[in-house]
Amino acid sequence: MNTFKELLTKVKDLFEKENFVFEPRGLYDPIDYTLSLGGKRIRPVLLMAANEMFGGKAEEVAHAALGIETFHNFTLLHDDLMDRSPIRRGMPTVFRKWNDNTAILSGDTMFALAWRYFLRQPHANLQSILNTFNETAIEVCEGQQFDMDFETRSDVTISEYIEMIRLKTAVLLAGALKIGALYANAPAADIEHLYQFGIHAGLAFQLQDDWLDSFGDTATFGKQTGTDIKDNKKTYLFLKALEQSNPEQHNQLTLLFSNNPEDADSKVKEVLSIYEKLNIRTLTEQAIEEEFHLAEESLKAIQLPEERKSTLYEISRSLLGRDK
Amino acid sequence: MNTFKELLTKVKDLFEKENFVFEPRGLYDPIDYTLSLGGKRIRPVLLMAANEMFGGKAEEVAHAALGIETFHNFTLLHDDLMDRSPIRRGMPTVFRKWNDNTAILSGDTMFALAWRYFLRQPHANLQSILNTFNETAIEVCEGQQFDMDFETRSDVTISEYIEMIRLKTAVLLAGALKIGALYANAPAADIEHLYQFGIHAGLAFQLQDDWLDSFGDTATFGKQTGTDIKDNKKTYLFLKALEQSNPEQHNQLTLLFSNNPEDADSKVKEVLSIYEKLNIRTLTEQAIEEEFHLAEESLKAIQLPEERKSTLYEISRSLLGRDK
Repeated sequence: MNTFKELLTKVKDLFEKENFVFEPRGLYDPIDYTLSLGGKRIRPVLLMAANEMFGGKAEEVAHAALGIETFHNFTLLHDDLMDRSPIRRGMPTVFRKWNDNTAILSGDTMFALAWRYFLRQPHANLQSILNTFNETAIEVCEGQQFDMDFETRSDVTISEYIEMIRLKTAVLLAGALKIGALYANAPAADIEHLYQFGIHAGLAFQLQDDWLDSFGDTATFGKQTGTDIKDNKKTYLFLKALEQSNPEQHNQLTLLFSNNPEDADSKVKEVLSIYEKLNIRTLTEQAIEEEFHLAEESLKAIQLPEERKSTLYEISRSLLGRDK
Repeated sequence: MNTFKELLTKVKDLFEKENFVFEPRGLYDPIDYTLSLGGKRIRPVLLMAANEMFGGKAEEVAHAALGIETFHNFTLLHDDLMDRSPIRRGMPTVFRKWNDNTAILSGDTMFALAWRYFLRQPHANLQSILNTFNETAIEVCEGQQFDMDFETRSDVTISEYIEMIRLKTAVLLAGALKIGALYANAPAADIEHLYQFGIHAGLAFQLQDDWLDSFGDTATFGKQTGTDIKDNKKTYLFLKALEQSNPEQHNQLTLLFSNNPEDADSKVKEVLSIYEKLNIRTLTEQAIEEEFHLAEESLKAIQLPEERKSTLYEISRSLLGRDK
């Protein structure tokens, strides 16, 4: 059984060997560019880890690991286009480096290339595996639509927000785990626990991402803080603050999140001071902790010796900064 | 065994029963709209006809018929966005009725919904069937990229053009036939003949579409003629004319196809008069005839009694106006 680090090396090696040297270049250059930019590669690692936990071997699910990561990168490519995000992983996004049409069509092709990986090898569970992949893909699209809908809605509830991040982020982590387990012919009850582990770890991870954007240390976070506030993003923090606020604070928050002032830093400071007053830092930490706890409980419930789960404990604790 | 007309009725009934009443509505309304607009429904009919030719029953491949048509409509949705086409089947296209992002994301979801149909039922050949579907999808994307590349290229050859329409149009007709035959466990050699029938019929159909745009009768064609010329589209007619032209005509054609004059009707007349001088009408008819002949030869080569092929003869002759 491989550790987190060993699996990560395997996944990186896999992608280094993949080249998209086909014609037309206008279609495949952006795909090659996207897939070689790197990223955390966490989904293929989860897929392999789940597979090995139930007695499989990472090498035997390499094709599915490539497939799930190719799919993930397709969603990022189209999301960046829809959100008009200029930068991804420190490099220009595809629609900026090429154009909108290239981003649309190269993305579509990447979705099909993900399928090509999955279809590379037969398996007794292939139909279930492909169904899991496809239903997950549909949910990810639904999540992105909810996310875009929320931009123009002023009545988003916390539970709607949680459902959105479940669809947009958590189901793909959970789906990767489930697929890895299906390849190892794991028992249905264990697969369900594993899936729930992925959902709760995914929610914890996304809530932590929201938290870091406001309260994180730029050096460790690796991104500018305060960007969600500048962009008027309705994160968990903002929605929790609305929930906790008195009428005056409610109006103030609503007003602040409907403006794009030139002095964005003052706006960030003002919002953060309301967050501090309303105890948003601690309330969000509690929500993360709760999801993290549910994730670990789900992992515990799997009917395997605890030592077989070590890599998954390691991955989720590392992602959530609980490994120090 | 059902006739063309009977299969068409079955396909139309299938789509009338399909409703996309899921949340979020912003994602599924455009899908529902697109799939209920109709169209020729020729791909699902071909899939069913191929299946029945080898002893299958149309009802048993209904899910795959829905899948192939959903995929086709996804490609139209994204193509219309990339080409900025305002109208499809007499109605506003999705990006015009909604917006670009809706067209991107609803399209992505339709691709996944096509997979959902294909994954609905198990089959001994499922992996081959899905591979055929997916490789076809990749080729269709490649064809669209070549088509877009050609817009800015001045050195497109006739054989490059034929390869582009093979990918963009013919492979999906051929793929639909192959999938129908795979579901009926047809012999490999017959599947190959059937595939070639689809390729040649598809090429004939696309060349005929080019021909109709210049020489067709608006009343029977159902579209305005001359639009390819107005849009400077490098069709078979234009490329053949370049090939046949003397240096003076070559310059004239190149100049005409680099302008968008206000008096577009005069431009169309001028181009058509060059086409007449260079015998483009007859040369194109010969090319269509050649592909039609190759299509019928491929169908003949299938090791089945001719009466089993009647529906496919009927469909291809009807599509190519040879049924009168």
